[in-house]
Amino acid sequence: MNNKITPRKLQGFWELEPEKEILFEEMIDKIKLVFAGHCFVPLDTPVMEYSEILLAKSGGDVDKEVYRFVKGSTDACLRYDFTVPLARYVAANENNLSFPFKRFQVGKVYRGERPQKGRFREFYQCDADIIGDGELSLINDAECIKLYRDVLCAFNIKAQVKVNNRKVLFGIVKSFGFEDKFSAIAIIMDKLSKIGKESVKAQLAELGCDENMAQVLVSLSEVSGYEEAIDKVRKFSDVEEYVRGLEELSEVMSYCRAMGMEDKDFIIDFGIIRGHNYYTGIVFEAYIEGSTSAIGGGGRYDNLAEYFTERKLPGVGMSIGMSRLFDYLNESGYFAESSRSVTQVAIIPLGNTIYDCLKIAAKLQNKGVKTDFFGENKSFKSKMKEANRRGVEYVLIIGEDEVKNGLYALKNMKTGEQESLNETQLLNKIF
Amino acid sequence: MNNKITPRKLQGFWELEPEKEILFEEMIDKIKLVFAGHCFVPLDTPVMEYSEILLAKSGGDVDKEVYRFVKGSTDACLRYDFTVPLARYVAANENNLSFPFKRFQVGKVYRGERPQKGRFREFYQCDADIIGDGELSLINDAECIKLYRDVLCAFNIKAQVKVNNRKVLFGIVKSFGFEDKFSAIAIIMDKLSKIGKESVKAQLAELGCDENMAQVLVSLSEVSGYEEAIDKVRKFSDVEEYVRGLEELSEVMSYCRAMGMEDKDFIIDFGIIRGHNYYTGIVFEAYIEGSTSAIGGGGRYDNLAEYFTERKLPGVGMSIGMSRLFDYLNESGYFAESSRSVTQVAIIPLGNTIYDCLKIAAKLQNKGVKTDFFGENKSFKSKMKEANRRGVEYVLIIGEDEVKNGLYALKNMKTGEQESLNETQLLNKIF
Repeated sequence: MNNKITPRKLQGFWELEPEKEILFEEMIDKIKLVFAGHCFVPLDTPVMEYSEILLAKSGGDVDKEVYRFVKGSTDACLRYDFTVPLARYVAANENNLSFPFKRFQVGKVYRGERPQKGRFREFYQCDADIIGDGELSLINDAECIKLYRDVLCAFNIKAQVKVNNRKVLFGIVKSFGFEDKFSAIAIIMDKLSKIGKESVKAQLAELGCDENMAQVLVSLSEVSGYEEAIDKVRKFSDVEEYVRGLEELSEVMSYCRAMGMEDKDFIIDFGIIRGHNYYTGIVFEAYIEGSTSAIGGGGRYDNLAEYFTERKLPGVGMSIGMSRLFDYLNESGYFAESSRSVTQVAIIPLGNTIYDCLKIAAKLQNKGVKTDFFGENKSFKSKMKEANRRGVEYVLIIGEDEVKNGLYALKNMKTGEQESLNETQLLNKIF
Repeated sequence: MNNKITPRKLQGFWELEPEKEILFEEMIDKIKLVFAGHCFVPLDTPVMEYSEILLAKSGGDVDKEVYRFVKGSTDACLRYDFTVPLARYVAANENNLSFPFKRFQVGKVYRGERPQKGRFREFYQCDADIIGDGELSLINDAECIKLYRDVLCAFNIKAQVKVNNRKVLFGIVKSFGFEDKFSAIAIIMDKLSKIGKESVKAQLAELGCDENMAQVLVSLSEVSGYEEAIDKVRKFSDVEEYVRGLEELSEVMSYCRAMGMEDKDFIIDFGIIRGHNYYTGIVFEAYIEGSTSAIGGGGRYDNLAEYFTERKLPGVGMSIGMSRLFDYLNESGYFAESSRSVTQVAIIPLGNTIYDCLKIAAKLQNKGVKTDFFGENKSFKSKMKEANRRGVEYVLIIGEDEVKNGLYALKNMKTGEQESLNETQLLNKIF
């Protein structure tokens, strides 16, 4: 065959080189352990859902971005998040599940947008949600907030979760008689830190908000702190939702503290809104110390599965930006110490010792030592070079003399030190 | 909203209830550990590939079964196996990879066939392959065979790998002058154990094979054993490929033995052909003791990526049927002992002790104890019932008296025993 097809990967799709993939999986495993410690259970939904289901509540960009196709009589889409599949799962199993239902899901989702730096068409999502039956205590909101601390602590990362309540913004907006335009206002307020005060005010003016209202909204957004921050903004409105929103924030703050979170771990910040209008109460974003872009966010929603069931299923969820976290861990040198070599021992034969090498290799593997046998028909020199290139920890050289004497030469590839060991010593060595 | 959409999952798509998902992930983790012990690296390719790539070598059913769609200028398909993505990856990275390149991949693949018992449209695949540059020693074939033993041993499963070489069948076929029809003959011979001797002979006759040839093919297929089996069939042909095929089997057998495999672990079986004409040499299938359907299979192929590169990349790979293995583990009771409860300790408040409960919960979680707090506004009785239903190991009851005295009541839900512990005792307890 002469006409070769260029082996191209789809642009914007996820694929790490194996050395990095090992670290990425190490990261996932660590996160899963934290979720399991909080008694969340894993869910692994199909990568596809019926279009009818997946697009039930969407609008705007989702329809355009989604990978959709028809096969036979099936009209399906690749999932673009884990929330809709969760809603479908919970609604379909509402009579068998125990509530609150605490589940996490780590996997890939698909958005056919134009790929660019930091934006992928296929990327890892990591969500933990708690779904209640009819009602759900604010303790669960606090638990989701604390999950960030526990996950990031597991990686020795210093981070702070900024917490707000969308009811607070809603209350203010309502007090000005603009509750019909709440969604649009929330989307504008969410952009404050990106586009700045003046642009926000200009966009609010376009919606018909007057100077005074815009000023109150911006002032509120700039307040952050703890009890004193809540006290400070209390006077802004006495609308029911506003008062309730502040009460909820106080309550969540108390729960966070009871859970051992300190001021360095979380803060009330009235500027946190979240883009999704899906959120109806407490919202939060986690920031690694020194960073201005969130490593994850989440919040409370009134009704998870309203398109699929009459049952009211309120929930709260948190999400971690996996590629962002992975980049951070790589750049901060986190993996430098934690990662082990793929190959702990590479066995290299000298002369006619293949069978002896295979015996030893199998015994080391049985002991749990990651062992490879360099058995290809190549020179000893090229194999030593290869061991170096692969970052092998130890090379075990087995020549005919070694077999005769029952003593093997084990070379530490970092220090260059070589020791002579018999089989028992070798198998008892701690690698 | 009154018109609810029925929350349907796509038929034939993979989704386990969380309790089973936990066990499934436990299974995957164990398998990965075995692969890592043999120094295989993980690869996580995109779920989609360009259609041009994915369908390069396919024919027949694949084109019909594949999920294909066009979005903008992109014509892509969901992967139906891991071999083509591996070929694409290796060809694209041939100058950066170290050969032999040993990779494993565990994940989902997609085939739009009609779903039926044991057949899914979305299912887990688990492959380990070793790719050589130009040539690849038969030691690698033996390593793939041994991987079955090591993986299945990790689950305490007794199994045997049946090993053959397609060159042997090719040699016989060639000696009758039928080498042009080898592919068709191989597909028929692969069905021997399913459709029986007479049907095989009838199908061979349709291809033009005479009675004598059919009899030789069937006779050969019925031979199994070790050195003596090879000796027994040696006389059947002296065609070069036949002789070479038997030599390779002897060689692989020696490697398997050197690796510590015993007769119970593997056997030469001239009836093993494998359906894929993709295989060109050693082929094998693993059978759990007492089962007639294989738990996995694999073999040697001459050239992994001939559609994508001029470089000759021979390989050998093994595959494990994940849902079959999982079903077996469930049915055999394997998980009964190994699995732990999702919730080790559920904390239930009595009276106004929420904050105290949260403190203790966080401290237990910090100690690595899987701890849940039953903080919803429900009765104590319903919470105890819920703890039972969820299979919680211990319930920690914290009432106002308990807080005052600093002594907490820990109830073992299996034995019903209750002990009174102070905070230090509780945090030092081994759960």
